[in-house]
Amino acid sequence: MQENKQQIKTTIDAPITSDSRLFGSIEGGGTKFVCAIGNEQLEVVEKVVFKTTTPEETLQKVIKFFEGKSVSAIGMGMFGPLENRLTHEKYGYITSTPKEGWADVDVVRPLKEALDVPIYFTTDVNSSAYGEFISREKADGLVYYTIGTGIGAGIVLNGEIVGVTGHPEMGHVSVKRLADDAEFEGVCPYHKDCLEGLASGPTLEARLGIRGENVALDHPVFEIIGNYIAQACVQVTLTIRPNIIVLGGGVMSPTLLEIVKKEFKKTLNNYVEIENMDTYLSLPAVVENGSATIGNFALAKKLM
Amino acid sequence: MQENKQQIKTTIDAPITSDSRLFGSIEGGGTKFVCAIGNEQLEVVEKVVFKTTTPEETLQKVIKFFEGKSVSAIGMGMFGPLENRLTHEKYGYITSTPKEGWADVDVVRPLKEALDVPIYFTTDVNSSAYGEFISREKADGLVYYTIGTGIGAGIVLNGEIVGVTGHPEMGHVSVKRLADDAEFEGVCPYHKDCLEGLASGPTLEARLGIRGENVALDHPVFEIIGNYIAQACVQVTLTIRPNIIVLGGGVMSPTLLEIVKKEFKKTLNNYVEIENMDTYLSLPAVVENGSATIGNFALAKKLM
Repeated sequence: MQENKQQIKTTIDAPITSDSRLFGSIEGGGTKFVCAIGNEQLEVVEKVVFKTTTPEETLQKVIKFFEGKSVSAIGMGMFGPLENRLTHEKYGYITSTPKEGWADVDVVRPLKEALDVPIYFTTDVNSSAYGEFISREKADGLVYYTIGTGIGAGIVLNGEIVGVTGHPEMGHVSVKRLADDAEFEGVCPYHKDCLEGLASGPTLEARLGIRGENVALDHPVFEIIGNYIAQACVQVTLTIRPNIIVLGGGVMSPTLLEIVKKEFKKTLNNYVEIENMDTYLSLPAVVENGSATIGNFALAKKLM
Repeated sequence: MQENKQQIKTTIDAPITSDSRLFGSIEGGGTKFVCAIGNEQLEVVEKVVFKTTTPEETLQKVIKFFEGKSVSAIGMGMFGPLENRLTHEKYGYITSTPKEGWADVDVVRPLKEALDVPIYFTTDVNSSAYGEFISREKADGLVYYTIGTGIGAGIVLNGEIVGVTGHPEMGHVSVKRLADDAEFEGVCPYHKDCLEGLASGPTLEARLGIRGENVALDHPVFEIIGNYIAQACVQVTLTIRPNIIVLGGGVMSPTLLEIVKKEFKKTLNNYVEIENMDTYLSLPAVVENGSATIGNFALAKKLM
């Protein structure tokens, strides 16, 4: 995992032309915030990364980055759980997170007050799902999972983010225990052995006693993790019949993807037809974890 | 279960007025077909029920019923699996059903050729889901399960039936075995112990050796079945965050609904907020299994 000090990195991928509008992206994670500015083509023209500290300090840095930049709107994807229903009195809040200092915090209002721009507020995984949706052809039914420190997921159906009473919490669905894994308790603080509890990054260290990034990609533990991810993919396939499932996050690798595909085929057992197994389960189309940023630009643009 | 002989029943609930269009409904199940005609208000003005025999004979009866009735369009909800993607070469077919004589049968084309009206073709559970959606206020995210001879489900999100690569097969999601039920193999011909394999009507007789309709509603077996249904409701809640889950079908009863509610609360354990538990899990709003008929009328009307 990359160490995020107080460093500020700025990259210019594309020029700002005078006739184009600019859009903002805020990707707020538990360890770092990524803020970016994009042009009409949703290309990054400026970007900053900083550590997540207190809400006050972190949001001040966000405001400082966007001040004077004349973005037309901002897309904001945050770690959850959060309240993204526009009509809810707690709209714009991070709700019940275990992250110290961030529970029950209104993150949208301070930004709106300081920057006076429309903000589209959702989860980071919904942003990523949307970024993948707009980066692909024919993704009418797209599911995005991030398999990392936690497991989260977003769904985009026919161009719309799914979730009537809130955002999906598909990282916490239950999966069937493998006989090989019967001794492992699971790490989810809420459910112990839900999908996140059995297949997220921290389960590597919890099972093996060595840090996840030091576990070889061909270690048999990935057969177990791959099976649980595959089970979740089968469940969502039977439920909404998507046409693509994108698997992102720090735990995913081309090797793990192949294991997931193998276990998915075995578990689904042709019960429903998958037109193209080669592309049905995929790594993100947007490289370098950029799905959420592009998704946020697009969601901001949609507000206009 | 009701014996369906060759009887034809006709009911008139509402008058046909000269200025109103008429819509047709075909609800095709494994044991019986229900065909009906509805007015602009989606009220039934004529109805017929007959036994499902061969496709040829059954479709001839459907044609005979609608001939000369001047319906503007027909909504057709059939037992599945079926092909309901308009662009698919097998659109309008029942696909891989185990029901003798019905696999790989085009059911839409013979009707279109004989009756020359637009037909909306979907599953019976999608029709029911849609019928429940239009019969309720504020059902932006509605899931409908039928718990009967089999278990099927449909989803209506923001007024649209969900399913990009086909219709949901949520009756076949996996659930966690209860310790009390470890000996029971399950009845699903494909998966043995999926939701349908553990909670459908035939599991009553398979477990107890007495016909399902003779099992007392307070028999402890319903605690087990209720738990499995609740597990499925939790999974779909975490996945798409609907605002109502409707539980229909011959196995459901007010008693079983209360068990499902109890088990759902226990399993969800407040992980996500359910605004109104009293109405979140509900029996159908449309009485006497009429959800699919009203849904079909509405889907037919939508084609106009």
